This record gives sequence, structure tokens and C-alpha cells, in this order.
Amino acid sequence: MSYGVQTLVIVGVGLMGASFAMALKRARLVARVVGVDHSEQVLTEALARGVIDCGCQDVRQAVNGADMVVLATPVGQLAAILQAVRPALNPSTIISDLSSTKANVAALLRQYLPGHLSYCLPTHPMAGSERSGVAAAQDNLFQRRSVVLTPLPETHDVVKAQVSALWSGLGAKIYIMDAEAHDNVLATVSHLPHVLAFAYVNEVITKPHAQSGLKLASSGFRDFTRIAASSPEMWRDITLANRVAVLRELTEYQQKLTRLSEMIASEDADSMLRLFSGARKARLTWGKDFFEG
Amino acid sequence: MSYGVQTLVIVGVGLMGASFAMALKRARLVARVVGVDHSEQVLTEALARGVIDCGCQDVRQAVNGADMVVLATPVGQLAAILQAVRPALNPSTIISDLSSTKANVAALLRQYLPGHLSYCLPTHPMAGSERSGVAAAQDNLFQRRSVVLTPLPETHDVVKAQVSALWSGLGAKIYIMDAEAHDNVLATVSHLPHVLAFAYVNEVITKPHAQSGLKLASSGFRDFTRIAASSPEMWRDITLANRVAVLRELTEYQQKLTRLSEMIASEDADSMLRLFSGARKARLTWGKDFFEG
Repeated sequence: MSYGVQTLVIVGVGLMGASFAMALKRARLVARVVGVDHSEQVLTEALARGVIDCGCQDVRQAVNGADMVVLATPVGQLAAILQAVRPALNPSTIISDLSSTKANVAALLRQYLPGHLSYCLPTHPMAGSERSGVAAAQDNLFQRRSVVLTPLPETHDVVKAQVSALWSGLGAKIYIMDAEAHDNVLATVSHLPHVLAFAYVNEVITKPHAQSGLKLASSGFRDFTRIAASSPEMWRDITLANRVAVLRELTEYQQKLTRLSEMIASEDADSMLRLFSGARKARLTWGKDFFEG
Repeated sequence: MSYGVQTLVIVGVGLMGASFAMALKRARLVARVVGVDHSEQVLTEALARGVIDCGCQDVRQAVNGADMVVLATPVGQLAAILQAVRPALNPSTIISDLSSTKANVAALLRQYLPGHLSYCLPTHPMAGSERSGVAAAQDNLFQRRSVVLTPLPETHDVVKAQVSALWSGLGAKIYIMDAEAHDNVLATVSHLPHVLAFAYVNEVITKPHAQSGLKLASSGFRDFTRIAASSPEMWRDITLANRVAVLRELTEYQQKLTRLSEMIASEDADSMLRLFSGARKARLTWGKDFFEG
């Protein structure tokens, strides 16, 4: 049998879940996909598009006999889903997810599936889109993108190997780290800039000169604020799920801004130039060394 | 005679000055361009590319008989240039500039050319590039971009009309405001985000997990930090030239971050959602209503 997974259950057939299913099908790494969603309309559309082979609104019923269950709903729904599926899981069903924060998912798994942890492997594929829903799904969404696996101490090696093989088969670059390290790193390079961009645009529109400002705003403003158009609900949830790390990032960034303000107030041109030059050099190096998206 | 300007002197033949000269030539709005630069090599290259008709390293000699002098050097050189040209100016030579801050330019003109103010009209074309130098110059750099004219109280109406006609002839959208309003608005929509982006990248690279962070950083990071690759020298100068407004912006932004931190710490999900949603709505509206660059 050449399939990586016989029966895959995707809980939440949105952009991420549907893209994962489509990518696995295209790579012939799954035989059968069962989609679970509250919305019958979503399931009908996913069936029509060939994203899933079977749709089901009852998650407990859907996981019966599944080899792998991937949770792709907003994180706020995970507790209820885990409670519902617990009695119906096979002992060797792999449980994974696609959420942006990982320590909270690990805690939920520990709370609701304490006897199943060796088959749990939370993951975070670093891909997305401003668009959402099954209609926006793409079977190449994960190609050449990073995916972070955050195994629990209990996770079996064979589960790590199997999940890694799936993501590798989709063309993703795999990183393995613990959930806390993941959340700290993401707080720095993703959660903080989103929060800063939301706060910045919110600040601009409260200025007395907001209208003339927006008229004169140019390409720098455009790029700096692009992520302020992201989903407010999703970013509220991510920020709250990772609030300790995000608050620490905000505090440290505010300290940096205070030091920079002092340089400007005292017209310390040399220190300003050092700070700006260090940032420029790092940004130019990053563009070359790291990013391939 | 169909030419807008007979003899134009560009002081500083870099990206902005050279692009302005090329655009005016292409639009047949200038008969003859004299380029002034410290660097003989720059003048030779500008001559070879047809950007200027004549090169000169002595600014006082160059302005002799000019109809218009456009200062396109870093702002730190303006005082010396204005002192040098003062004895050689015709009474009706128009003086303009292309700098990013305007109150400081107005003050320099008032200090060094107090008898010539009715022919002075500082301007700020909102265009640029990460690249610099005459080789990066483009004759369409100002098409459909905004240019802000900041006339002095003394500036003659005929000078305003003539300079407006030149920029209109290049396809720019013209805004007229006083220098202080310009500097306040630009502090909000341009200077603050540049300073925030420099500070953010500088903060990221000082983290213990900087390397794994940069590996996992994705398209949101890429766009948010693009402007941190801008010229450190130019942004040091802009920040210092407009330091009162930039410091006020930094203070107000820090207050916003403090309020947001309090929302996150107290898990005030509703207030967070309101703040994020307001920013998203404004950003999506801006994309449609304002920006055409």
C-alpha cells in the first residue's frame, strides 16, 4: 500500500484544513478524507470540489475508524471537539492540528486525551492567506513553506516519523521544537508585528489629521500595515493563547522604543545610526539567507 | 516658447534630482539642465546618460543665470549650499528642494536667503526607491505620486503656479499645506513606521532565539520590515530634522501599546477585537480609497 494515511479526518474544512486535504490527495498520501464541519453548505462545497470524499457534521461519528484526525478549527472549539471524540478514538489514531499557538494545544490534549498522548503531535504549518474558506484552498499552499512539529514528551517516535513524512511529501520544510520554544519564537517574529501593525493603524485613524495622512501615505505605509488587514478574530485568539509571551515581547519592544526616544531627544545621531544600520544589515541578510516564500 | 523652465540647476545628482531632471526633459518642460555634484564621476555618468546637459562642481558658478534651482542633496548640506549661492542668485530665480522634511528647510531659507523668500517654494515628492544614485533614476518616478508643496507666507502666487505646473506636467498629484502640517502628517504616516520598523528588527536580532526566529519568519515579517532596509543615514537625518513630531508620535504610540497590553493582560477579548477590527477596516478602506502607487 503506497498511501501514507488510509482514512484522514479533517475537523474544520476551511482554508487550512481543505488545503491540507487537497495537498495530501494530490501527493497520493491519503486514500480517503472525511470532512467535519458545522456547516452543511461547506461540506457540500468541499465534496463538489473533491476536497473531501465524505462529509459529516458529527465529529464523534466521523473519527470512528480514522487513522489520523487533524484539527483545523479555531482554537476556541478544540476543547469541545476533544471531549466529543475521546470515547470514539481508536487507540492508535494520530491526533494533530494546524493552529498557530502550540502550548495551549498541548495543554488541551493533556487535559482531554490524557491516555492518548503518545499518538498526539501538534503542528504549525507557516502558511496562510488573507482569503479564507474552502473556495480559497490550494493544493500547493505548503510547498517550500516551514512546518513546525511540537511533539509532546510522550509522542511516539513512529508518530513523529509518520507525520514528518506526510509534510515532507507536501514539500514543506520541517522544524521540530517544543511547544514553548515555538510560542516564544512566533511571539517575536509573527505575533508581535501583527499586534504592532493593528495598534499602529488604530493610532493613525484616531489622529486629527488622519484623512490627510491617509491621502499622503505611500508604499512604506502600505507594506508596514498589510498584516493589519488580517482576521481580527484569529489574531485576538492567537494573542490571548500566547499572551504571556506576547506581553513580554511588547514590554521589551517598549523598552527599545524608550531608548530610541531618548537618543532622538538628545540628538544622539551616532547611536541612532548604529541602531538603524544594524536593522538594515539584518533585514538585507534575512532576505537573502532565510526567506524563500 | 513652450519650455516651462529655460535653465534648471539640480544640486545633488542622485536618485531624486536625476529623476526630476529626466522627467522634466521627457515632458519637454526644461530646455537645459545643469547638474551640480561633489563627485566628478557622478557628473560624468549623468552627462553620459543624458540626465544633464552640463556638469559643474561649483554651485555658486552653476546658479549664475539659472531660472530655477532645485536642491536635491541630503539636508545636512543645505546650509552651506544656500550660503554659497546667495551672492550669485538672480532676483527671480526660483529655489525649491526635494527633502522629506519641510519646516527645517523653511527655517534654513529664512536664515540664509531672507531677501529671496518670495521665490522660494519647498516641495516634497512622495516617491523614492530602495536603490539610490543616478543609475537608479527613472523618468517616470513621479507619475501618479503625490507631491506636497509647502509655500512660505512670502512665496509669490506666480511661483506657486509655475512650480505646480511643472509637477502636474510630470503626472504628480499636488497637495498644498504649510510646512508644519506636512511634517506632522508625515511623522504619522511615514517617519513613525520607519522608526518602528528599524527598532523592531533591531530588537529581533538581539533575542536569544534570533536565529530560529529569522528561519521561521514569513511573509508578514517580510512586509512589516521592508522599510527597515532603508538608508540609515537618510532616516537618521529625517528623524532628527522632525524630532519634535516624531517624539510626540512615539509617545502616543507607546500609550496605545500600553493600553493594548492592559487589554491582553486582563484578557479583555472584546476591546482587543474592537481595536483589531477598526484597524482592519481602515486598512482595507485605505487600499481602495487612497493608494494608487
